[in-house]
Amino acid sequence: MSVTTLILKPLALAVAVAVASFGVMPAYAAPKDPDPSTTAYEGTASAVDPESAKTVRTPGAPDLTETEFQKAKQIYFERCAGCHGVLRKGATGKALTPDVTQERGMDYLKAFISYGSPAGMPNWLTSGDFTEAEVELMAKYIMHEPPMPPEFGLEKMMETWEVVIPPEERPTKQMNNLNLENLFSVTLRDAGQVALIDGDTHEIAQVIDTGYAVHISRMSASGRYVFVIGRDALVNMIDLWMEEPDTVAKVKIGMEARSVETSKYKGYEDRYAIAGAYWPPQFVIMDGQTLEPKKIVSTRGMTEDTQEYHPEPRVAAIVASHNHPEFIVNVKETGKIMLVNYEDLDALSITTIDADRFLHDGGWDSSMRYFLTAANNSDTIAVVDSLDRNLEALIEVGKTPHPGRGANFVDPEHGPVWATSHLGDPSIQMIGTDPEGHPDKAWKVVRTLQGQGGGSLFIKTHPESSNLWVDTALNPAEDVSQSVAVFNINDLEAGYVVLPIAEWAELGEGPKRVVQPEYNVKGDEVWFSVWNTQDKKSALVVVDDKTRKLKKVITDERLVTPTGKFNVYNTQHDVY
Amino acid sequence: MSVTTLILKPLALAVAVAVASFGVMPAYAAPKDPDPSTTAYEGTASAVDPESAKTVRTPGAPDLTETEFQKAKQIYFERCAGCHGVLRKGATGKALTPDVTQERGMDYLKAFISYGSPAGMPNWLTSGDFTEAEVELMAKYIMHEPPMPPEFGLEKMMETWEVVIPPEERPTKQMNNLNLENLFSVTLRDAGQVALIDGDTHEIAQVIDTGYAVHISRMSASGRYVFVIGRDALVNMIDLWMEEPDTVAKVKIGMEARSVETSKYKGYEDRYAIAGAYWPPQFVIMDGQTLEPKKIVSTRGMTEDTQEYHPEPRVAAIVASHNHPEFIVNVKETGKIMLVNYEDLDALSITTIDADRFLHDGGWDSSMRYFLTAANNSDTIAVVDSLDRNLEALIEVGKTPHPGRGANFVDPEHGPVWATSHLGDPSIQMIGTDPEGHPDKAWKVVRTLQGQGGGSLFIKTHPESSNLWVDTALNPAEDVSQSVAVFNINDLEAGYVVLPIAEWAELGEGPKRVVQPEYNVKGDEVWFSVWNTQDKKSALVVVDDKTRKLKKVITDERLVTPTGKFNVYNTQHDVY
Repeated sequence: MSVTTLILKPLALAVAVAVASFGVMPAYAAPKDPDPSTTAYEGTASAVDPESAKTVRTPGAPDLTETEFQKAKQIYFERCAGCHGVLRKGATGKALTPDVTQERGMDYLKAFISYGSPAGMPNWLTSGDFTEAEVELMAKYIMHEPPMPPEFGLEKMMETWEVVIPPEERPTKQMNNLNLENLFSVTLRDAGQVALIDGDTHEIAQVIDTGYAVHISRMSASGRYVFVIGRDALVNMIDLWMEEPDTVAKVKIGMEARSVETSKYKGYEDRYAIAGAYWPPQFVIMDGQTLEPKKIVSTRGMTEDTQEYHPEPRVAAIVASHNHPEFIVNVKETGKIMLVNYEDLDALSITTIDADRFLHDGGWDSSMRYFLTAANNSDTIAVVDSLDRNLEALIEVGKTPHPGRGANFVDPEHGPVWATSHLGDPSIQMIGTDPEGHPDKAWKVVRTLQGQGGGSLFIKTHPESSNLWVDTALNPAEDVSQSVAVFNINDLEAGYVVLPIAEWAELGEGPKRVVQPEYNVKGDEVWFSVWNTQDKKSALVVVDDKTRKLKKVITDERLVTPTGKFNVYNTQHDVY
Repeated sequence: MSVTTLILKPLALAVAVAVASFGVMPAYAAPKDPDPSTTAYEGTASAVDPESAKTVRTPGAPDLTETEFQKAKQIYFERCAGCHGVLRKGATGKALTPDVTQERGMDYLKAFISYGSPAGMPNWLTSGDFTEAEVELMAKYIMHEPPMPPEFGLEKMMETWEVVIPPEERPTKQMNNLNLENLFSVTLRDAGQVALIDGDTHEIAQVIDTGYAVHISRMSASGRYVFVIGRDALVNMIDLWMEEPDTVAKVKIGMEARSVETSKYKGYEDRYAIAGAYWPPQFVIMDGQTLEPKKIVSTRGMTEDTQEYHPEPRVAAIVASHNHPEFIVNVKETGKIMLVNYEDLDALSITTIDADRFLHDGGWDSSMRYFLTAANNSDTIAVVDSLDRNLEALIEVGKTPHPGRGANFVDPEHGPVWATSHLGDPSIQMIGTDPEGHPDKAWKVVRTLQGQGGGSLFIKTHPESSNLWVDTALNPAEDVSQSVAVFNINDLEAGYVVLPIAEWAELGEGPKRVVQPEYNVKGDEVWFSVWNTQDKKSALVVVDDKTRKLKKVITDERLVTPTGKFNVYNTQHDVY
């Protein structure tokens, strides 16, 4: 039942497709965009004048025609940049600068691109995704200097900024009958949409066009607005009070992005939003009512350990502090966590905490004072004390932790803990989070369980539940990726029960990965995405949390490639 | 007597030479280094592999051989980068990126390089500094993409870091008989040295090897240590307690630099030093006893106004706050002032104030709460409230203000003021600095005087003096650049008296610019550099402040190209 390490081989392509939707995971290449005209890179010409591509050649690299170069550049951005970085300095994927690639040589590169590696490189040829010619093209291309993509500053943001409905024209009270607290915002990845689904009736209330492959939904502090961000860095702000909830403002904040958040500190509710980009490496603070870009901050700087300049430190998870008027911004490649105080945007105060490289996702402990966040390729969890503004602890965990926001519960033996699962091994680890009540347990791994296998993206529980759910969406074994493990919090050592979620959905063929448990507001239902490819049927499966029995399969022709689901109340209040 | 605007023509070369030593001024090209092996760029290979220069050519630019390219690169770094920037994005000089230069074309570029412009571009051909062939080479070179110089991170700094005498081997009390409070640290620009000169006896106490063209000297809070920084970014830490004061530690913090400062906040005396670099654009906080690099921070980021990314925002003046444990760092091209809190280097807190572009030099008001700093190419003075950590005011002044640290005194009519002179016009402006006692005058230009002419670098007075001295070192008129104007603070509208300082020095031929008035500790003497070229005699001229009569001419064969002078006590205590 258990797979000890995550080895991506036969399913590499499907894995790559699956992962890309959860931009929280940088380790895999982006999938082919179904409609290139909607991609982040459409129309983003290289900073290098096209003419120059005809004559500027990197010594040591095989010549390419201008057309070949442009095609390779496009493929690189869509498939490779997510892991290897736009500038190819490496992150979860290896560095691919010409000094490295030319040393390797054509044959090595072609083999690697064709067949992948157990460490996570997809098998682009044997998966059928690249032709032989494309493999050869990409091998040549990466022996050239990487072209620098353009910057995306205020002027470009302003060009994309649109207030669809100004604040003064919006309703002054809720104009629909939805139970907003129990609404779910569900990413329809390949459709470039989100579905708002009524958590009480399980009906789709609205489908709203957004950026491509929405990475996350976040709620304003009041719960009225939903903010979503696409991989293409388009932010949509959706007003839930309208008769038919829809986008009231939007803005593009870069060319590739993963994170959005809203100000939650007392007195600043619904005042600001923030979005973080992968390219350019920057974040922007926006007006919380209109998305007007107010302040752009570049994250380029020195790595936390070796103190060397990094040209592409991407912005990963962002959370809103409850202890200060601050956003907490994970900067991946430099391993720094920036506490961005929004009290005075003209004299912006930022506390930069040296944590660990390759910061990614994470969440609050139950007291909401400590932010626990994965440095995924460093196999650690960094703990930020958001009150004192410093690093509380750095904890070694398993291989490539990927907690999502993690899971908080009271361990019967160890007291309050926060748990993470892993991409790189089947372990699930519980970290003590109660320095006052359980000082000897605080910031230590107090318990390690074994789950179904590696390839876990999300772990989840709810204050009203005694279940701990662990998905294994990226596990290469079909029976593992299509089911979920559930532990009883009050008897953790008893092991897990496996629920065959995909089977319950009765969708027919397709990879049907089961991903991301998400609770309803009461904590008595847990929802799973059964995520199939775009040409196949997908579904949401609702499980009764008490009985662990199937409660409902939500299917609808509009439900194309559902991935992340965000319950309004739980997201608004950081309940997880 | 007065020259209304500064026009550099016949004296362009001399001006360029003169200015370079006061790296405070970015508007002019760097002089030819007398010994290329000592320059900042010696040995700093381009990030582009040399081989690539043989084949990588920028389209639209005339081909260059590898040898030509390398020669042009060297000349560019030595002569052009100071104004136009390493990446040629422009600062005081214009942008010289290929899109601009190729549009201009060869003939235009050659003419401009040969003959200069009234706006400050030196006449490289007619000055005799470039040959016709070199002019052509440079015109071709700047039509190519600028090569990116290498980074200079912690590893490189550590390689250059040397503790000559560890703290535990240093004396525990002063081992010499110098009156340290009245010692002067004097830059011997072209010798790559500083002279320590006894302010009581006017004798040279010590000559110490340093980096090339030391830009400034700063004292530790205790007054024991002198920190100097060369244009080549070499920092020397000199212990004044040793029997023969000498370097006890040194480190190179980049490839080109201008600023160094020490921590002065209560409890942090002699704890930290900081140095700011022009390339790479960064600053580093160092141990105040050993110069060990502790924390490097890149200044790359968005401009304060348009919020566009700037790849080369250079670090200009740095001062130590007296109101918080902070350094105040001017970032030139982005127009941001960073308040860098050094309480916790692992969770570094920085407040970034949007001020105005092209921040340069400046100093404290007499209360040492407000930092007044010139945004030189914006013709403004920005006022930072170091207590509340925000921008107090932005004041329009004359053309290209260059205050050095400015001059504080009580204007008989307007109360406490801080004064600046200008590079670009002959005006001297007084700004009210007393918001409590004179709220209607605060942060306004309350008085404007006309001096001898443009080209002023420094203005100076002393709490014990009623004289206000204004140099005009860069004025193209010889009689103006070789003399100094002095105003009576108690009768400012009476106009100035001119003292022929260079004439008093009786040095014979040479440009002999009179530069930088500096007071002794008592405030009863004011010292001037009579700065001649390296092959000619230079001197320091000491004037009796009360009588305005010549008191002493200090000459010595070791006194090669003296420029900046820093009295220990006055520098230590920010008396100006």
